[in-house]
Amino acid sequence: MTRTMTDELSQHVGETVSLEGWLHKKRLLGGLNFITLRDRRGLAQSLIDNKDELEKLRGLQIGTVLTLTGTVVADERAPGGAELHDVTVEVQVSVTDEPPIEVDKPILHKSENLDTLFEHRVLNLRNINEQKIFKIRASLVQYIRDYLQQNEFVEIDTPKLLAGATEGGAEVFKLDYFGQTATLAQSPQFYKQIMVGVFERVFEIGHSYRAEPSATTRHLTELTMLDIEMGFVKSHQEVMDTVAGMTKAVLTKVYDQHAADLKTLNAPELKLADEVPAFTVAEIHDMYTKATGTDTTQEKDLIPDEERWIAEHARKQLGSDLVYATDFPKEASKFYHKFKEDTVAWADLLFRGLEIATVPLRENNYDKMIEQMTAAGLDVNADGFKYYLQAFKYGLPQHGGCGFGIDRLVQKTIGLGNIKEATLFPRDINRLSP
Amino acid sequence: MTRTMTDELSQHVGETVSLEGWLHKKRLLGGLNFITLRDRRGLAQSLIDNKDELEKLRGLQIGTVLTLTGTVVADERAPGGAELHDVTVEVQVSVTDEPPIEVDKPILHKSENLDTLFEHRVLNLRNINEQKIFKIRASLVQYIRDYLQQNEFVEIDTPKLLAGATEGGAEVFKLDYFGQTATLAQSPQFYKQIMVGVFERVFEIGHSYRAEPSATTRHLTELTMLDIEMGFVKSHQEVMDTVAGMTKAVLTKVYDQHAADLKTLNAPELKLADEVPAFTVAEIHDMYTKATGTDTTQEKDLIPDEERWIAEHARKQLGSDLVYATDFPKEASKFYHKFKEDTVAWADLLFRGLEIATVPLRENNYDKMIEQMTAAGLDVNADGFKYYLQAFKYGLPQHGGCGFGIDRLVQKTIGLGNIKEATLFPRDINRLSP
Repeated sequence: MTRTMTDELSQHVGETVSLEGWLHKKRLLGGLNFITLRDRRGLAQSLIDNKDELEKLRGLQIGTVLTLTGTVVADERAPGGAELHDVTVEVQVSVTDEPPIEVDKPILHKSENLDTLFEHRVLNLRNINEQKIFKIRASLVQYIRDYLQQNEFVEIDTPKLLAGATEGGAEVFKLDYFGQTATLAQSPQFYKQIMVGVFERVFEIGHSYRAEPSATTRHLTELTMLDIEMGFVKSHQEVMDTVAGMTKAVLTKVYDQHAADLKTLNAPELKLADEVPAFTVAEIHDMYTKATGTDTTQEKDLIPDEERWIAEHARKQLGSDLVYATDFPKEASKFYHKFKEDTVAWADLLFRGLEIATVPLRENNYDKMIEQMTAAGLDVNADGFKYYLQAFKYGLPQHGGCGFGIDRLVQKTIGLGNIKEATLFPRDINRLSP
Repeated sequence: MTRTMTDELSQHVGETVSLEGWLHKKRLLGGLNFITLRDRRGLAQSLIDNKDELEKLRGLQIGTVLTLTGTVVADERAPGGAELHDVTVEVQVSVTDEPPIEVDKPILHKSENLDTLFEHRVLNLRNINEQKIFKIRASLVQYIRDYLQQNEFVEIDTPKLLAGATEGGAEVFKLDYFGQTATLAQSPQFYKQIMVGVFERVFEIGHSYRAEPSATTRHLTELTMLDIEMGFVKSHQEVMDTVAGMTKAVLTKVYDQHAADLKTLNAPELKLADEVPAFTVAEIHDMYTKATGTDTTQEKDLIPDEERWIAEHARKQLGSDLVYATDFPKEASKFYHKFKEDTVAWADLLFRGLEIATVPLRENNYDKMIEQMTAAGLDVNADGFKYYLQAFKYGLPQHGGCGFGIDRLVQKTIGLGNIKEATLFPRDINRLSP
């Protein structure tokens, strides 16, 4: 018999159908024995009243793979408004060991210990709510792709195995590459700038590696980044507008398409203003110092509590979950940034209090690049810079872009406490498996 | 003035417009001075007849970034049917060094030395034909995503940094991970099987790493793989049909959408039969031995010349660029394959003579997996297997899928001689940059 999916049951009332899936829950109440089956579309309830059929399930645990054939009966108390009666049970795969965690618990894992959760990640992901998180993640990534493709950005795919010098900033992982030392890319920074010389507008969604020995709620050692770069821009504002426009479009769409799931997951209500509010770092220091009494005016970067504070301000006063911090001081800059008088043409996009993207304009003049790299103490003849600098020497228009954390976007869209909860199999200083 | 794109010129005949882009070609013929400008849409020709404007270009080389403002004149000899006259030149970025390779050559790089090509990859990619290759690549990947999403496959994103034991087969890269040894994933094999227990149908497009010390026309050390896995399949044939259906749909679409580009690149005509022809490995050995006189009947795998031979046979006799080799002998199998009587439920999909995908059915019974792993001499208690085996212990339906080489698909779609030509910045035993 052709397989019917759990969410199609109510279209087949009165018919005999076969469901296939995992035993997700058993409620054996003496006379009334219900089991819940899970398939890729959701859950369905079946009433098993025949003793021989019930006997087939004896000793079998959650996870057992079943075919259930029976008659569809409308029942508004059942999930989806229909359930299966007069059921014949066929066991495809027996599970005889009781799972070490409860897969069918409707609540999320917030109160549990995250280490226990990841130790049992293989089973924990079978939880319906966990699945919602990763379907939302897949949608967010697809909406980003759709948006960028519609705006003539070409998706590129660049190497993560690099020779020698990189852009600096984070610690890098090193490996033996046939006798040479290779590093794992901490970003596709150089490649996306090179590719501006080819396609003008490019993006990549891929892994970046940061050997940071810090265990926080917002860091991973292997992360998924959206990298965007666009050429022929007239101003830093144009880059900021592009990134803000994309982020607003993608969030609006995910809140529209996944409304029910986001509600189940207790995601915050989405607040977006027509314009993403923007404050300079100096302004934020002033506002924060006045509001809290803690003097941050000497800080070069925003401190994490300032990020939370300005986000709260933007949400409450300006109705926006997104806010830009702009004009970072020169001391915080990298050699490839475009410098202004006293600051850098560099903004951070904050979403609900977390920096999700850095959005700078790049220096595109070859001579100035050489000057800025030399000033930064870098060897412009090093192998890692040689090819990168070719792109500038042979003509790159003014360009800018962003490094945008996909894991962080998912975390904050749903309102998860830790970035690791937004990642299927996270990697940090303490965790390399599963 | 708002920027006009090169492909929009013919819509603005008689108007004054501004183009922005790279100086792509100069033809200074005394009285008639033409320059070609390249932007992300293509090329446009401009006639520079004013001496002062011409003077601005003196000493400037290919790659110089320009704004050209002038009047659009219809001319059927110009690319796009229109060109710019009475041009004012504004130099955005000067290039004063002559590029080490000719970027504007209309021919491809087949006759050139590939090492020279990759040494100048940053500039070589600015060649219009190179751009076509990577636009076709981006389209192929997007069509695959579209197809799989429409068939309820969820895109997943799994770690490439692994602890300890893996599925075997290829050499792995090792790195220091905060004092532990980590390996780079040679495939997402374990993770996609684990995820069948979550979403039933999953796919991932990501990097895989193979530390093979071999330099061939079809191997990379960092490759891009499409990995698919689907649960609740009734047979190996169902998996083979899914992979064949996707491949046919994607190829048909790319030949439709990129017809002109594929023609320019001299891609072979696409031949697809209603059914992808399938032959067992034993049959292919027999057919090849009879046809060529070279006895391969004792080989466990297909030899490369057999792959070419059966592909030729399928194309000429059966009108198909795709052909399956099925029923690999047990000696060639891995521990996670589903064994048949004397062979394995494992097929290879060949495209124009190259294996582009392995398409096996998996063993999904926990006890049999333990048995097969033990028989293969593996330690089932090793850290790298522990979590993987949880998925089986707690219920996995029958499933199968494929590992599908994206770089190889692009190579063979276009008809490139070497897999590296299908990769922006390829990695092999000798090349780690650019």
